[in-house]
Amino acid sequence: MTYAIILAGGVGSRFWPFSRELEPKQFMRLIGQESFLESTIRRLKGVVDPERTFIITNNIYFYEVKEQVAKFRIPDKNIILEPQGKNTAPAIGLCAKLIGGLDKEAVLVVLPADHYIKNAPNFKRTLKGALAVAKENFLVTIGVKPDKPSTAYGYIKTGNKKAQAKKSVKYFRAEKFLEKPSLEKAKEYFKSKDYYWNSGMFVWKAGIFLEEMRKYLPGLSRQLNSIRLIQDVGKIWPKIKPISVDYGIMEHSQRIALIPANFFWTDLGSWDALSEIFPKDKKNNTINADVLNLDSRGVCVFSRSNRLVSTIGVNNMVIADTPDALLVCDRNRTQDVRQLVERLKKLRRKEHKAHLTQARPWGSFTVLQEGAGFKIKIIEISARKRLSLQRHKNRAEHWVVVSGAARVTSGDQVSLVRSNESIYISKGRKHRLENTLSQPLRIVEVQTGNYLGEDDIERFEDDFKKECRPVC
Amino acid sequence: MTYAIILAGGVGSRFWPFSRELEPKQFMRLIGQESFLESTIRRLKGVVDPERTFIITNNIYFYEVKEQVAKFRIPDKNIILEPQGKNTAPAIGLCAKLIGGLDKEAVLVVLPADHYIKNAPNFKRTLKGALAVAKENFLVTIGVKPDKPSTAYGYIKTGNKKAQAKKSVKYFRAEKFLEKPSLEKAKEYFKSKDYYWNSGMFVWKAGIFLEEMRKYLPGLSRQLNSIRLIQDVGKIWPKIKPISVDYGIMEHSQRIALIPANFFWTDLGSWDALSEIFPKDKKNNTINADVLNLDSRGVCVFSRSNRLVSTIGVNNMVIADTPDALLVCDRNRTQDVRQLVERLKKLRRKEHKAHLTQARPWGSFTVLQEGAGFKIKIIEISARKRLSLQRHKNRAEHWVVVSGAARVTSGDQVSLVRSNESIYISKGRKHRLENTLSQPLRIVEVQTGNYLGEDDIERFEDDFKKECRPVC
Repeated sequence: MTYAIILAGGVGSRFWPFSRELEPKQFMRLIGQESFLESTIRRLKGVVDPERTFIITNNIYFYEVKEQVAKFRIPDKNIILEPQGKNTAPAIGLCAKLIGGLDKEAVLVVLPADHYIKNAPNFKRTLKGALAVAKENFLVTIGVKPDKPSTAYGYIKTGNKKAQAKKSVKYFRAEKFLEKPSLEKAKEYFKSKDYYWNSGMFVWKAGIFLEEMRKYLPGLSRQLNSIRLIQDVGKIWPKIKPISVDYGIMEHSQRIALIPANFFWTDLGSWDALSEIFPKDKKNNTINADVLNLDSRGVCVFSRSNRLVSTIGVNNMVIADTPDALLVCDRNRTQDVRQLVERLKKLRRKEHKAHLTQARPWGSFTVLQEGAGFKIKIIEISARKRLSLQRHKNRAEHWVVVSGAARVTSGDQVSLVRSNESIYISKGRKHRLENTLSQPLRIVEVQTGNYLGEDDIERFEDDFKKECRPVC
Repeated sequence: MTYAIILAGGVGSRFWPFSRELEPKQFMRLIGQESFLESTIRRLKGVVDPERTFIITNNIYFYEVKEQVAKFRIPDKNIILEPQGKNTAPAIGLCAKLIGGLDKEAVLVVLPADHYIKNAPNFKRTLKGALAVAKENFLVTIGVKPDKPSTAYGYIKTGNKKAQAKKSVKYFRAEKFLEKPSLEKAKEYFKSKDYYWNSGMFVWKAGIFLEEMRKYLPGLSRQLNSIRLIQDVGKIWPKIKPISVDYGIMEHSQRIALIPANFFWTDLGSWDALSEIFPKDKKNNTINADVLNLDSRGVCVFSRSNRLVSTIGVNNMVIADTPDALLVCDRNRTQDVRQLVERLKKLRRKEHKAHLTQARPWGSFTVLQEGAGFKIKIIEISARKRLSLQRHKNRAEHWVVVSGAARVTSGDQVSLVRSNESIYISKGRKHRLENTLSQPLRIVEVQTGNYLGEDDIERFEDDFKKECRPVC
């Protein structure tokens, strides 16, 4: 049987200020209405069944993943949680072990959750070819024919000039994995035709992969073998050394086959790469936001705010605007956004962590304004969801319902607060906010008090426990 | 007696998005805590008495001016209102006529409200010299010795190489007024030492000025003479042709004397000029906002938002950030902000008109969020001020007091709503919001309804009538 492992644990910071620690790239809707994770799952339709699609991610992203995968009928138990990110080899190893334990003949399709692919039918065709070759006990990697001498990707050199064929599927043997090259080297690779970009998409039998892992990463293999119960992951994981599957296995294994992709692919590793795929005006400015450009060229604006962005005489620039942070970056320097995020961390700023709008398993909230003794939020509660039964020591809350209707518990009393009605929750009073309807509920909350930190909360009952979920 | 005329009617758009049609440069606090208007008035201390200081401005700025000048003990009647801006000659002419009617020997100090001057004592010294020369029936203009070959200013060529002296005050006769030159010309002027920047600051007798106006602008002179009653201004003003005092009178008069300024002066005509006077780091980036620059040089950030502004590899740029509009502009192109504002007008955008925070005679309000069927505002009411008694056809209002206490009239009932209390004003109900205390009152307002435009208001009583005030 065919299984998919979608790697969705990245905390990539290169799309800051759009991406935040609590909202990394794979969950973002940068292109169209779908997140990268959702697009990745949708592309598997017809190749891998939802019940055999697994998502491995970090603990803290569980509810986000759960919400995004639910519409694809992927069961919650297929969401595998890591307590810490350890790069790709441990993550894939854990999934291979788990799936291999259920199905000895399992073939795994391993896909990063945050890549961009055009032409899903061709993608599926390539994948089916890779599956056929994987059944011959190869570790199959999907290689992308470079369309420019990029320095942003690793390369794979194919070992034989001519493609081989298994059941009419063309493939190459891989000779060498090469790290991101200098521009000079990249130009050489681009010329030679024997080189492919390493896409990070793999297909292999669980058993063969685990065998290769035993050979090339025996320590990791032993650590994974010691995981027998749910609780073990929490104990073992902190001891695991982060290592990529490329560096740990692919560069050593003698069983590598490469199948060329016949679709457009990019890993969208930077704002600049993202800019490439957006429509442009005659002066090469993107036209995807509320922008007024005067004599500007090559200006790429991405906006998560309602603000008008205007430029005069500006060239070759990425502008990324959010309600609490703005980035203005030379397009040749978008790789350095990571450095900026590191600086923010060191300065103990909050802007790298979360947006002013934060997703919650029951919906979301947005901080509109904080002032002396008050804080204003918009709270959105999804259909038939509720917040925890809770209490605040230091703040009172005024709620005005602006759409939908709220079932409010306040002390012993339960009441229905309709649109254009309001209710007051005094300091220290136990309360709960609930949406019993099938339409969303929207509330304006005005908090008053001397201390308004999010940590002033005592939870009594909660539909969404914060604990780590079962793994194996 | 000495009088001051402060020209405060400009609708200058070169500081957009900070300046808006309803909040032009002269009222803005760009440097320190004072507005340009306030600094202009403060600099006159000891030279012109407050009761002889007149402000001429546009009708729509009356309450703004009134609030800013009150602390200087300038009486409200000294605020002269124009129904439309007609450039400097009509404005100065109207004031000269008004003041000349009160005091035949009046000497006028004419000052733009939006310039920047360092060294107030030297400014006063220069002014006193100019007053002495003006008493000899000269039209005195204050000239600034260029410290660079600027193309942003008009120039005055002095007629005689050697300064003359009246009562030990050195002055020159002016030979020629020159418009903003090309860079080549500017370099020539800068070299020659006979040229001064035209600062737009003038000193003259009201009678002499009116005499020169009769000679060189006879039409305007007749129009101003036909103004005898308050109501006449509204009738005559629309017919007046806009013309500057430089073009209309100074370029023709044979009575011009120039006194060199011995203080630092700039008209701050653009973001770039403003950038010049702010402190910089080693890489020439301004350090006046919440900014993180990575490898950027010459980046000048001005912020009226709480947002973090970050840049990577950006050079020679002005970034001006406000809650509803952002400008990213090459520093050599800041003169073109005007063009951008013209485009906004043509596109019927709202961002050139008002800020999300709007001043009102009773305080201010800020629109925080507008959504389907609701709008959230923060309303600040100054000590002992009140809004009009009013009614809305289409919206209800929820008010939460977050600091101070509100005296609320709702229908026939009057109640005191304290901090952390709330009140509901239903649709169609007459109401009034009042701050009877000496501390400011702050309210969070949640409006609900199908139509939430500012024009849904019926006013019954209003402390702040919108009509044009008396002029002559």
